[in-house]
Amino acid sequence: MSKLKGKLLVAQGGGPTAVINQSLAGVALEARKFTQVERVYGAVHGVEGIVNEDFLDLSRETSHNLECVASSPCSALLSTRVKPDHDYCMRMFEVLKAHDIRYFFYIGGNDSSDTLRIVNAAADDANYELRCVHVPKTIDNDLVENDHTPGFGSAARFVSRAFMGINQDNRALKGVYIGVVMGRHAGFLTASACLAKKYVDDGPHLVYVPERAFSLEQFVTDVERVYAEFGRCVIAVSEGIQDAAGNPIMTTLKDMGADAHGNVQLSGTGALGDLLMDHLKQKTSIQRVRADTFGYLQRSFMGNVSPRDAHEAREVGEKGVQAAMWDNIDGSVVIRRPVLNYGVDYELVPLENVAGKTKHMDPSFINAEGNGVTLAFHNYARPLVGDSFHEAFRLRAPRVPKRS
Amino acid sequence: MSKLKGKLLVAQGGGPTAVINQSLAGVALEARKFTQVERVYGAVHGVEGIVNEDFLDLSRETSHNLECVASSPCSALLSTRVKPDHDYCMRMFEVLKAHDIRYFFYIGGNDSSDTLRIVNAAADDANYELRCVHVPKTIDNDLVENDHTPGFGSAARFVSRAFMGINQDNRALKGVYIGVVMGRHAGFLTASACLAKKYVDDGPHLVYVPERAFSLEQFVTDVERVYAEFGRCVIAVSEGIQDAAGNPIMTTLKDMGADAHGNVQLSGTGALGDLLMDHLKQKTSIQRVRADTFGYLQRSFMGNVSPRDAHEAREVGEKGVQAAMWDNIDGSVVIRRPVLNYGVDYELVPLENVAGKTKHMDPSFINAEGNGVTLAFHNYARPLVGDSFHEAFRLRAPRVPKRS
Repeated sequence: MSKLKGKLLVAQGGGPTAVINQSLAGVALEARKFTQVERVYGAVHGVEGIVNEDFLDLSRETSHNLECVASSPCSALLSTRVKPDHDYCMRMFEVLKAHDIRYFFYIGGNDSSDTLRIVNAAADDANYELRCVHVPKTIDNDLVENDHTPGFGSAARFVSRAFMGINQDNRALKGVYIGVVMGRHAGFLTASACLAKKYVDDGPHLVYVPERAFSLEQFVTDVERVYAEFGRCVIAVSEGIQDAAGNPIMTTLKDMGADAHGNVQLSGTGALGDLLMDHLKQKTSIQRVRADTFGYLQRSFMGNVSPRDAHEAREVGEKGVQAAMWDNIDGSVVIRRPVLNYGVDYELVPLENVAGKTKHMDPSFINAEGNGVTLAFHNYARPLVGDSFHEAFRLRAPRVPKRS
Repeated sequence: MSKLKGKLLVAQGGGPTAVINQSLAGVALEARKFTQVERVYGAVHGVEGIVNEDFLDLSRETSHNLECVASSPCSALLSTRVKPDHDYCMRMFEVLKAHDIRYFFYIGGNDSSDTLRIVNAAADDANYELRCVHVPKTIDNDLVENDHTPGFGSAARFVSRAFMGINQDNRALKGVYIGVVMGRHAGFLTASACLAKKYVDDGPHLVYVPERAFSLEQFVTDVERVYAEFGRCVIAVSEGIQDAAGNPIMTTLKDMGADAHGNVQLSGTGALGDLLMDHLKQKTSIQRVRADTFGYLQRSFMGNVSPRDAHEAREVGEKGVQAAMWDNIDGSVVIRRPVLNYGVDYELVPLENVAGKTKHMDPSFINAEGNGVTLAFHNYARPLVGDSFHEAFRLRAPRVPKRS
């Protein structure tokens, strides 16, 4: 049991998810149970809120409102894309010390876990006793060590619900449909479009992920084959697809600018979808080609939470607090799936195991042609979108014999 | 009571909606109760299914599966964009006569109601007794005579759920967000983004509809004003916005092609959002500008049905059958709102009252500046998205005093 008395600070970083506030509530409510924690503070806009000394006193928030906030999508403490350098960390320490903050919980992805690793190292250098715990979240599902990450299941639920409807729409008014899905380096979210399939001719018929080199020529060949078979074609494609040289297909079109982490803007534009649509219109005789880019709806859409995802997002917050208090250790909370049927365990691993690293889809999840997913991926992803999942129905009435 | 014995044919035309199969089930199940109706047929792909003599025998569909299909989005009989000319109608009659079809129900929008008007006129010319009933649907909500149309409430629910989440996302990571919403001539769906607002600084902060001329210069001025006040800006814009000369802003950018009705392709591309995003990046100093185009998800997203919309979509189908059977008349089913608090009545009006006409937003629904909606629109639209609507929650914890 930790004997370290002081305040606990929680912050949220990077892209919001549908369940990131479950983790916030998990930390804040669990922390109230430990007498070592004198106050629970929340930093506004992640590390920016620390250097700006902009804290909310979450000890004075009602548990009822924390539960309401837990069910609302998108970082309630607000977020940041800032990646602290050494000087930035030093400024953070001045503030942490001034407020006697001894527990620092950062809910975020691999950029955020790297931030936390730097802060923790700086704490050691400054001889300031500080427990640092990374609580995972990312819709991309690209954190190493984790079987999957909170936020992914709900985003996958959105993507598969979208493709379920799109598949019906595309049957009704035939043509080619391209849906562009988030995922810079990892294709998990795009691949989850496959959960929309029910009937044998259901889309998505083609799935393209960043893990495999994308060729415009092969794309045209694939689409023409599916179109010849079904008279239509539904395609799921990752925003982050790359050519054989590793250049994002998007950047072959236009310069989109980059953020402080050096990440090129792939989201918040329809450019990739339009590029692929225009290419098909030029290279094939198919008349009706449409492209949608699902954009920020994937991580924020109201009322689209996987119950299982919400449950796990809550638990990683709680588990992080318990590890810091009972075991008195730093680290990153990770999710394991130790059983054949669905179930999870949580564990704390060293921050550097997760920080700045990217998990990719296992090769067994992608088909040999690189344009679809395998049953192994179905089995992996299906539990994550939760029970009470949606299902589309078709008419099964017999055809009437012709009379003319 | 109609004494006309024969088969009843039902078809679905135009863009699918989330509740269009409720109307199909309403027609099919209600028709089973009348002995005049010897069989209920469904035409596959709308009028195309008639000339191709491609019918399903819906009398041999289980009522249980019809209920399942009713809850699934997108025309289960499949749809068409074909607009029949006189010759096309003559071919339709050969088939209708061959199958002794005496009741023709077409579920669709203003293009479909016009199709039905032509078919009905051709029936009169051919001295063939045929009851023609138009059952309304359109997510655009642009059918005249109707207070609102089935399909709109669910699409409005999608748009407002999207903006609820986007508003949270945009608070967390500040910047400018542009959401492009369907609506070629009428701004109802875009305007329904306003239902996302709860807190005073919530987005959407600006709403642009086709009913008012759109100026890129005024757009920049509006965005800069909002950004100066809130440090962020969420914008809802119709795909169909036009300049003062009536040209779609989209077509100032690129040639998108047109369908058989002469409609230019506005959906299934991110071009308008990207145009507006690029313009803001060029004309302002705002760093983070993002644009999403909601696309086909608005009419097809799985599990996004307004309960009230589903209820009314079912009833317009039933009411159409009852009018044809009990009152022995042709016409278009319309929805009235005769009471101050919410409630509807249905009525049959002549087909030509609705055919080919477009309803626009009442001027009282749009603010003086042409960049937002009024409380009158809120009151009009709020009941249509249904009860059990979503609500976002914020933290209300007090700020911690600074120490450094």
